[in-house]
Amino acid sequence: MSNAPMDPILTRADCEQHDRADPLAPLREQFDLPDGTIYLDGNSLGVLPKATAARVQQLISEEWGRDLIKSWNSAGWIDLPQRVGNKIARLVGAGENELVVADSTSVNLFKVLSAAIAVVQERPPMRKLIVSERRNFPTDLYIAQSLASQHGMHLLLAEAEDIPELLADRPAILMLTQVDYRSGRQHDMAALTRAAHDHGVLTIWDLAHSAGALPVDLNGCDADFAVGCGYKYLNGGPGAPAFVWAHARHVDNFRQPLSGWMGHAAPFEFSPDYRPAGGIDRYLCGTPPLLSLAALECGVDTVLAAEAHGGIAALRNKSVALCELFIARVEACCAGHGLELKSPRDPAVRGSQVSFSHADAYPVMQALIARGVIGDFRAPDILRFGFTPLYTRFVDVWDAVEQLVEVLHGGEWREPRFQQRAAVT
Amino acid sequence: MSNAPMDPILTRADCEQHDRADPLAPLREQFDLPDGTIYLDGNSLGVLPKATAARVQQLISEEWGRDLIKSWNSAGWIDLPQRVGNKIARLVGAGENELVVADSTSVNLFKVLSAAIAVVQERPPMRKLIVSERRNFPTDLYIAQSLASQHGMHLLLAEAEDIPELLADRPAILMLTQVDYRSGRQHDMAALTRAAHDHGVLTIWDLAHSAGALPVDLNGCDADFAVGCGYKYLNGGPGAPAFVWAHARHVDNFRQPLSGWMGHAAPFEFSPDYRPAGGIDRYLCGTPPLLSLAALECGVDTVLAAEAHGGIAALRNKSVALCELFIARVEACCAGHGLELKSPRDPAVRGSQVSFSHADAYPVMQALIARGVIGDFRAPDILRFGFTPLYTRFVDVWDAVEQLVEVLHGGEWREPRFQQRAAVT
Repeated sequence: MSNAPMDPILTRADCEQHDRADPLAPLREQFDLPDGTIYLDGNSLGVLPKATAARVQQLISEEWGRDLIKSWNSAGWIDLPQRVGNKIARLVGAGENELVVADSTSVNLFKVLSAAIAVVQERPPMRKLIVSERRNFPTDLYIAQSLASQHGMHLLLAEAEDIPELLADRPAILMLTQVDYRSGRQHDMAALTRAAHDHGVLTIWDLAHSAGALPVDLNGCDADFAVGCGYKYLNGGPGAPAFVWAHARHVDNFRQPLSGWMGHAAPFEFSPDYRPAGGIDRYLCGTPPLLSLAALECGVDTVLAAEAHGGIAALRNKSVALCELFIARVEACCAGHGLELKSPRDPAVRGSQVSFSHADAYPVMQALIARGVIGDFRAPDILRFGFTPLYTRFVDVWDAVEQLVEVLHGGEWREPRFQQRAAVT
Repeated sequence: MSNAPMDPILTRADCEQHDRADPLAPLREQFDLPDGTIYLDGNSLGVLPKATAARVQQLISEEWGRDLIKSWNSAGWIDLPQRVGNKIARLVGAGENELVVADSTSVNLFKVLSAAIAVVQERPPMRKLIVSERRNFPTDLYIAQSLASQHGMHLLLAEAEDIPELLADRPAILMLTQVDYRSGRQHDMAALTRAAHDHGVLTIWDLAHSAGALPVDLNGCDADFAVGCGYKYLNGGPGAPAFVWAHARHVDNFRQPLSGWMGHAAPFEFSPDYRPAGGIDRYLCGTPPLLSLAALECGVDTVLAAEAHGGIAALRNKSVALCELFIARVEACCAGHGLELKSPRDPAVRGSQVSFSHADAYPVMQALIARGVIGDFRAPDILRFGFTPLYTRFVDVWDAVEQLVEVLHGGEWREPRFQQRAAVT
């Protein structure tokens, strides 16, 4: 956004004026957006950058097809986890060579939670409690359940508002996703990390809905460990590899248990004994999926392109403006249709998404998708809309609400074709 | 090969005759092979199938770019780990729905070794020993070291010939790679599994250098667990995801520790409690890298295409013939140049590769690569040549040896440009 205050948005023409004045508007040109679609689901799967197809083709035809194994050296395949990691580091307040791309978010969480437990085990009397949020993304809880049970620890699931108080009970580890995937509620990473450390509690942050969407400052917050996702706001493509970070005070102190050869100090010595690489490289495990990794780099580059336009701070400002407009328009136009805001009203504690509950959220979302407005449904009753300021315009927000109004006023969501559940919802 | 016995190969013209008579010859048309190159490194990275570029483009442009998250259902993304897994199952003697594609070989080994340890823990008095081969691929040993130390067990590294005797000491688990990555020595999976079971020992087989290269019969051998690699003989592309299999008697009895949401019985319920899927699906963890997974399917299809031409048995016959020709020609033409066969001379105990040692193996291989014959060097002194009968011809073997002769006779490998080590060797 420009520094000058904009007029409030009362009409679609006002939206167009905001879009014309938006310094981030040119960034939309980086993407191949499907015709006739308003895509409000970049928090599930980011859209396709224009650069990706050609880059992946190059990797397939030239690096793999023509140069074959030579590309490990000549095309720099061997350094790609670090190269892309260093780019992501700039988006989350991590230092150079502190963050690598590897595996999935779930696997990386297993690594850092294992590392955190090892830190705890070295501090007698050993604390036994891992605290997380009941509404945390399930895969995070499943991994924590697995490790807690293996190490004789307990996983305590709390409501978000109870967490500060729970820290006084001196648990071992606080493991949170910064932005809740359903409600979009955003934790104050700095304050919670400080409070955790005041009680000797280690912190693990899942940045799945943060990286690329809002300012994150891992070192500034003095966080202990972090993981994050490549295929949401980083636009890395379906199932893009994830990333992992450990604070410098921890990184060399522990061998994470997934001790694959890519995390060895000298993988091509083929030594029978594991000797972990120094620094974050020891969090690598097997050979990375290079097609998906190359696509991730293209996605990360689309976010880094914002650095010339105000960077993450500018993205965040626009995200807040888009979300505020969406909430205002929905509440003004859809009153009486059973929608209830489930995201925080205060943008300071909200991520880059807005969720409303509705008793028939599933068919309502299906009817909306049939009209070309793509959000998603999250069980049991949530309509979830993600706003990606790199490519979402103010007119998109306006038009999306117009379609939602049509769906609700006309009652078309009651049609049987919108009731049937797909395998993936 | 046709059933009629072929003449022995004495000349390049004989090679051409063998290629003309080869029923597998048409399968070479499936690949984009680089001009001027004889590629004998398909055991490190398989070549590019012609179908891959278009398939990955379709996934990028249509499934991701146009259809976005709908593709989880409409393009069947959600079932891809099982779909490709079922195709690989046909190549390794696994049943329908017994094998899935997931993560890397290292990560999958962590899962199955964890599962095997859990089986052992339920059989008091608990056995403490994991036996493997000193020359096993290092990442397998690193993962085993990690889990052994975590569970108070010990990893015993033995020479291959000592393993049958060691089984009488009743270790807990025998973990082997069927075909040794350096020498190409092939274990007798059926006999070793039987011997292991006679002593109550569980078996884990790494099929990295077997799947797609030689007949494997996991169920026929009554193996317990297996993992394998997607980017070698399966031609899945650099860093393609790996696969994992567990025998039906084990698969439902244990929760492997990497309990990510894709292995949940109902991932889209978003339940806070992990409930493992039935069967092999519980060995899935996070969201799979779909670009790399789609490329893997194209690669697996190139091997399945051999089913119309005699299948894996025919591939194996041709592989043996190629390897025998290579050994005979090298020994006939390179005598006195310090090469020593490091692979078994008996093809029955050799995989689809041939290794020779040479005191200056690294520069010799670099000089050979500069002449367009690509094998690879393995520390400390191994020249390794992989033979992939899907695309390697008898004339390729002949011509490769001619180039090796030139390198050795001319001594060009002594040039300084061939001495300098690259990051990846």
